[in-house]
Amino acid sequence: MYHSPFSITTLGTGAALPARGRFPTSQLLNVHGNHYLIDCGEGTQERLRAAGFNFQRIGHIFISHLHGDHYLGLLGLISSMHLMGRQVPLHIYGPPELKPIIDIQLRASGTWLRYPLHVHSTEPVSGAVIHQDTHVTVTVLALRHRIPCTGFVFQEQSGARRLRADRVQEIPPFKRASVKAGEDLVLPDGSVVTNATLTEDPLAPRSYAYCSDTAYEPALIPFVSGVGLLYHEATFTTAMADRAKETLHSTAAQAAQLAKEAAVGQLLLGHFSSRYKSADVLLNEALPIFPRTLLSYEGGVFPVGPSC
Amino acid sequence: MYHSPFSITTLGTGAALPARGRFPTSQLLNVHGNHYLIDCGEGTQERLRAAGFNFQRIGHIFISHLHGDHYLGLLGLISSMHLMGRQVPLHIYGPPELKPIIDIQLRASGTWLRYPLHVHSTEPVSGAVIHQDTHVTVTVLALRHRIPCTGFVFQEQSGARRLRADRVQEIPPFKRASVKAGEDLVLPDGSVVTNATLTEDPLAPRSYAYCSDTAYEPALIPFVSGVGLLYHEATFTTAMADRAKETLHSTAAQAAQLAKEAAVGQLLLGHFSSRYKSADVLLNEALPIFPRTLLSYEGGVFPVGPSC
Repeated sequence: MYHSPFSITTLGTGAALPARGRFPTSQLLNVHGNHYLIDCGEGTQERLRAAGFNFQRIGHIFISHLHGDHYLGLLGLISSMHLMGRQVPLHIYGPPELKPIIDIQLRASGTWLRYPLHVHSTEPVSGAVIHQDTHVTVTVLALRHRIPCTGFVFQEQSGARRLRADRVQEIPPFKRASVKAGEDLVLPDGSVVTNATLTEDPLAPRSYAYCSDTAYEPALIPFVSGVGLLYHEATFTTAMADRAKETLHSTAAQAAQLAKEAAVGQLLLGHFSSRYKSADVLLNEALPIFPRTLLSYEGGVFPVGPSC
Repeated sequence: MYHSPFSITTLGTGAALPARGRFPTSQLLNVHGNHYLIDCGEGTQERLRAAGFNFQRIGHIFISHLHGDHYLGLLGLISSMHLMGRQVPLHIYGPPELKPIIDIQLRASGTWLRYPLHVHSTEPVSGAVIHQDTHVTVTVLALRHRIPCTGFVFQEQSGARRLRADRVQEIPPFKRASVKAGEDLVLPDGSVVTNATLTEDPLAPRSYAYCSDTAYEPALIPFVSGVGLLYHEATFTTAMADRAKETLHSTAAQAAQLAKEAAVGQLLLGHFSSRYKSADVLLNEALPIFPRTLLSYEGGVFPVGPSC
C-alpha cells in the first residue's frame, strides 16, 4: 500500500499554438507532498492559481527546451514568487541558454530577487543525474527535436524495509526504527531474531518519465523501461506522420509504440496540435497499440503506479 | 458626428502581481478599424482570443517599460503570429533593452520569423514623435517610474473638411473630393462659390493618452492637456500614499488630480493593486476630484471623445 502521493497534474496540454481551450505545456509533480514543476509555458502561474495551488511550495523547476510554449511563463512565475515575499531558494534546470535569458530580463526590469535563484544547465545525455533529494532522483532523457531538448525521469527514492504486520507487536517501539533500517532484534535474554523474519522488502519505487517534444526515439527505451507512468507527446495523428517527421514531433501511434516496447505501466498523451478539436482521435490511434493509454487534460491528476 | 471608431479595449487591469481575476496590463486601441496594442503582459494572446479578436490585425505594438507585467506576453504573441502564417510586417516600440531580449529568445528557440519584425527603440522624451501613419501620430510621455518608462499619446490625424449638408446637392459628385480638399467650386457659367460657404471645419481630432506606471508627474500636464481620454494608473488608495511614493506609482486621487489639472475629457483608471478586491475603493477616491472618471475592467471597451 502506497500512502504518500506520487502523482502528476497536467496544467496545459496544447502544442506550440495555444487554442481550443488548451494551454501551453506545464506539469506539476507531487512526490510525498513535495512539488516539482516540469516545463512552464505562458500563463502557468495563472493555471497554478486556477488549480488552487500555492506555487511558493515549488522548489525545483525543470525546463525541457527553449521553445516558447515550454518556458515563457517562467519569468512571470519567478517575479510573482518574489513579489509574494519568497525567501527560500528556487532551483531551475534547463538548457544552457536559459540562464542568460533569465538574467537579461531580471536586469532590464531592475529586479533584485529576495530569494536565491539557482539556474542549472542540463545537457541532453540520457541517464545523467541532474538532481537528487530525499524524495527523488532526477535523470535526463536525450530527446530528438529541432533544438536541444531533454526529457526527465523522476524516480522515487527507495523506502525503508517495512515491519511485518504479524510481528510488529513483538518489537519494542524504541527498537522499530533500527529494525526498519535492517538490523536484527536482540531480545533481553540475548537471543537474536533475524531481520528477515520481522520485515518485508521496501515497496517498489515509483517512476515518472516525461518525454516532451520528440520524434519517435527508440534510444530512449532502456531509460524509460518499466516506469509506472510515461508521458509522451502525441502532437499528430498517423495521417500527419510526414509533418511529425519534418517537425521532429510524434504521432500518437509512435508514442504508443514506444510505451509498448519499453513495457511501461501506463502511457499519458499530451501536446496536442491545435488542429484537433478533440484529442480523442489521438487516443483512438494509440489504444490498439498500447491499451493502458490515458489522455491528459487541463487540470487532470494522474497517480503514478510502481515501476514494472 | 464621428462614424469611425476610436476606442480602447482594456484587456488586463492588474498590477505587478496578477490575482483576483485581473490580468496584467494590455490595451487594444482601435482607430478607424486599425489596431494598435499597448503593453503586452503575460497571457495577452489568450485575452485577445477571449475578446474574439484576430491578433494578426495588429500592426504596431507599444511597450511602455520592461517590468514583466507589461511585456512578458510579447514573445508568445510574436511566436503565435508566426505559427499562424503571418507575412505582413510587425512594428514594436519599446525601451532599447527590448530588442536584445527578443533576439536572444528567438535565437534560443531556433525561430526564423516568416514576417518582418521591426523593433524600434523609444527614449523617454515627452513630445517626441515615434510613429505616424494615415490614422494616428504617436508621441511619447516621459513617465516617472523605477526604470525607464514611457507613456504614449495617440492623436487622430486631422480629417478633411466636411461638406455642409444644406449645400451638398449643389456640388456635382465629381467635384466633391476637391471641395473637401479645400478648393472653391467653379460653376459652368464661370462663377465661383467659395469653399467656406460649402464646407465646415474638420471634426476635432481625438486623442488618447496612456500613462502606465508612474508617480504623480505634473510635468506631463502640457502633453496630455485636453485629451479626450486619459488612462492613468491608480495602483493605490490614499492610505497607501507612502507606498505609492516609494514604488513610484500613483494613488487614484493623484491620477484624478492630474486629469483635473490637464482638463482632459475623461479619466480611465487601471493597474489596480492585488490588495483591492474591488477597484471601487479607487474610483471613490478619484470621483470627488475628477467627476468624469471611469474604471477599466477586463474586456471593457471605452470610446474616446474629441479633444477638449
